[in-house]
Amino acid sequence: MPSDFKIIKGPYIRDILQQPEALRKTLEGLGRDQLQGLDGNAARFDRIVLTGMGSSFHALYPLHLQLLSAGLPSLHVETAELVHYQMGAMNKNTLLVAVSQSGRSIEIVRLLELSKDRRSRLLGVTNDETSPLAVQSEGLVMMRAGEEVSVSCKTYLATLLALEWLGAVLVGGDADETRAVLGEAATATENYLRKWESHVEAFARSLEGVGQVFVVGRGRSLATAETGGLILKESTHVPAEGMSSAAFRHGPFETLSDHIFVLVMEGDSVTAALNRRLVEDIRAAGGRAALVSASDSNQECRLLDSREAMRPILEMLPVQMLSLALAALRVREAGRFGLLQKVTTVE
Amino acid sequence: MPSDFKIIKGPYIRDILQQPEALRKTLEGLGRDQLQGLDGNAARFDRIVLTGMGSSFHALYPLHLQLLSAGLPSLHVETAELVHYQMGAMNKNTLLVAVSQSGRSIEIVRLLELSKDRRSRLLGVTNDETSPLAVQSEGLVMMRAGEEVSVSCKTYLATLLALEWLGAVLVGGDADETRAVLGEAATATENYLRKWESHVEAFARSLEGVGQVFVVGRGRSLATAETGGLILKESTHVPAEGMSSAAFRHGPFETLSDHIFVLVMEGDSVTAALNRRLVEDIRAAGGRAALVSASDSNQECRLLDSREAMRPILEMLPVQMLSLALAALRVREAGRFGLLQKVTTVE
Repeated sequence: MPSDFKIIKGPYIRDILQQPEALRKTLEGLGRDQLQGLDGNAARFDRIVLTGMGSSFHALYPLHLQLLSAGLPSLHVETAELVHYQMGAMNKNTLLVAVSQSGRSIEIVRLLELSKDRRSRLLGVTNDETSPLAVQSEGLVMMRAGEEVSVSCKTYLATLLALEWLGAVLVGGDADETRAVLGEAATATENYLRKWESHVEAFARSLEGVGQVFVVGRGRSLATAETGGLILKESTHVPAEGMSSAAFRHGPFETLSDHIFVLVMEGDSVTAALNRRLVEDIRAAGGRAALVSASDSNQECRLLDSREAMRPILEMLPVQMLSLALAALRVREAGRFGLLQKVTTVE
Repeated sequence: MPSDFKIIKGPYIRDILQQPEALRKTLEGLGRDQLQGLDGNAARFDRIVLTGMGSSFHALYPLHLQLLSAGLPSLHVETAELVHYQMGAMNKNTLLVAVSQSGRSIEIVRLLELSKDRRSRLLGVTNDETSPLAVQSEGLVMMRAGEEVSVSCKTYLATLLALEWLGAVLVGGDADETRAVLGEAATATENYLRKWESHVEAFARSLEGVGQVFVVGRGRSLATAETGGLILKESTHVPAEGMSSAAFRHGPFETLSDHIFVLVMEGDSVTAALNRRLVEDIRAAGGRAALVSASDSNQECRLLDSREAMRPILEMLPVQMLSLALAALRVREAGRFGLLQKVTTVE
């Protein structure tokens, strides 16, 4: 472990360690009564538009897959693209699911104006009940993650949990069963984080000389890959990118060398074998790779529960440890913002 | 200009210089007779699924926006995700538009198997008329870009041109007018490339010390941003990423420093002012940026025509020059593949 381990002990790690509590409080606060009848029968809408920016956008991908699987016409679109280029897709038979931790970023404010004109039904998911998004939404799903200093961590996990529950409610699935499983996500998160220092140390040992990182996965784990790329570069300033394992094979694979580290999500049984093989092929090509999995993994990469509903939540923990390890190696406090404000107010 | 300018004079630059010819031949070969009645009335389909991998996937985004604008139910999805996780969205009332330059990458082969079972109507867009995609497609759009050595350049421009024409045909727009405009894309491309050496020199002058690149844009230009990130890293091994200008503001903006260069697409009038402001803000924050525009730009960043139908085609040329300049500075032959084959055959 580098001698400057203390550099990472700032507000970011405090936010990370508060994640179990954020998950518990969010779960406790979820209720159908706030949905204003938008739950249960999503099939009556011509289109369901899922939108957000950054990690809030990526967090919606598992829900998108769930809706498509149920035969529902879901559109997953970044809010900036939606408000300027895709409003033609929205009308009064559209259910708009808008996710924003702050509930007040510039794109969300613009969306609130425009969706009024279109008379779409609006379901907001936010961490701030005083925000424009909370106030103007017809149905509301509140995260209760508490205040977050910079890089999205506890709000992201709370978003995943809230959307997992919402998915069960929207498609008429077993919301109680989903709630029960999600109740254990907080405990699994807590158990993983109990050893956070040794996880960070383990990652740091395998990162010496690494100058670029990729996070890859498939299916629901694509949320982890994309958000992982985002938070890694934000928090460490090391070039980092998330994408599907297949997209990685189709291009970036060519750039592999000893200074590139690829964190691969094993994911569900549908594509687990493909993802495991990717790890082997990356190593054979001279790159470094680790597999995030419920089995076969080193402790720092091991998910402490294998159930689907909580997989994206647990997958994010090794990515956070990786961000701390990279920051320690770069002698830079992880997650300290110099240029950005927490809420994006310029388009 | 670095002394090793000759390093970039390999097969990649030959492919780049053949782009005007690739565009002309592709345009000449386009015909409704190959569409087998899939044109003209896209509204009869319950869903239109646009799919591909890598640059072929990104090239479909302008068509996706056009279909949504016309009120059509378009889904834009990476083929790897489609075949493993989103086949539920497809049935016999689905029009599948599949783009693959080789027509034989592993995901496309899998898609061909699966779409038979679903009885979807299949429209293939490919550069190889002997490929499985060409042979098994009901409707066919052929690119005639010729053989390409490694990084996608002439096949990408030919794809954009073919899809622009297809869009007009699918939504019942004025395909003849579109064809006439696209006819001028080859000339504009030729005129830009006539000065390729001075364009590369100009980029090289502004890249000294740069170690990471972003390409950003909005709307139709998002195709350029995403493909730009892909070909820059593939061809130069410098960390490079494409994303929307808004997504850049929501995260990577925080990482700006003098060794980061951001190529910003001005794009159409809807968001041009936002993109211009982003360039100013990047510079104010200590990063380097250049604006690709039909006006106000240095020659190496100037589009020689401002019409919408050819904008994504012309926007790609400065990105290619940037890739050559970066390669020259890194003393590495641009676009030489060491690890990858041209066609991806492993999932």
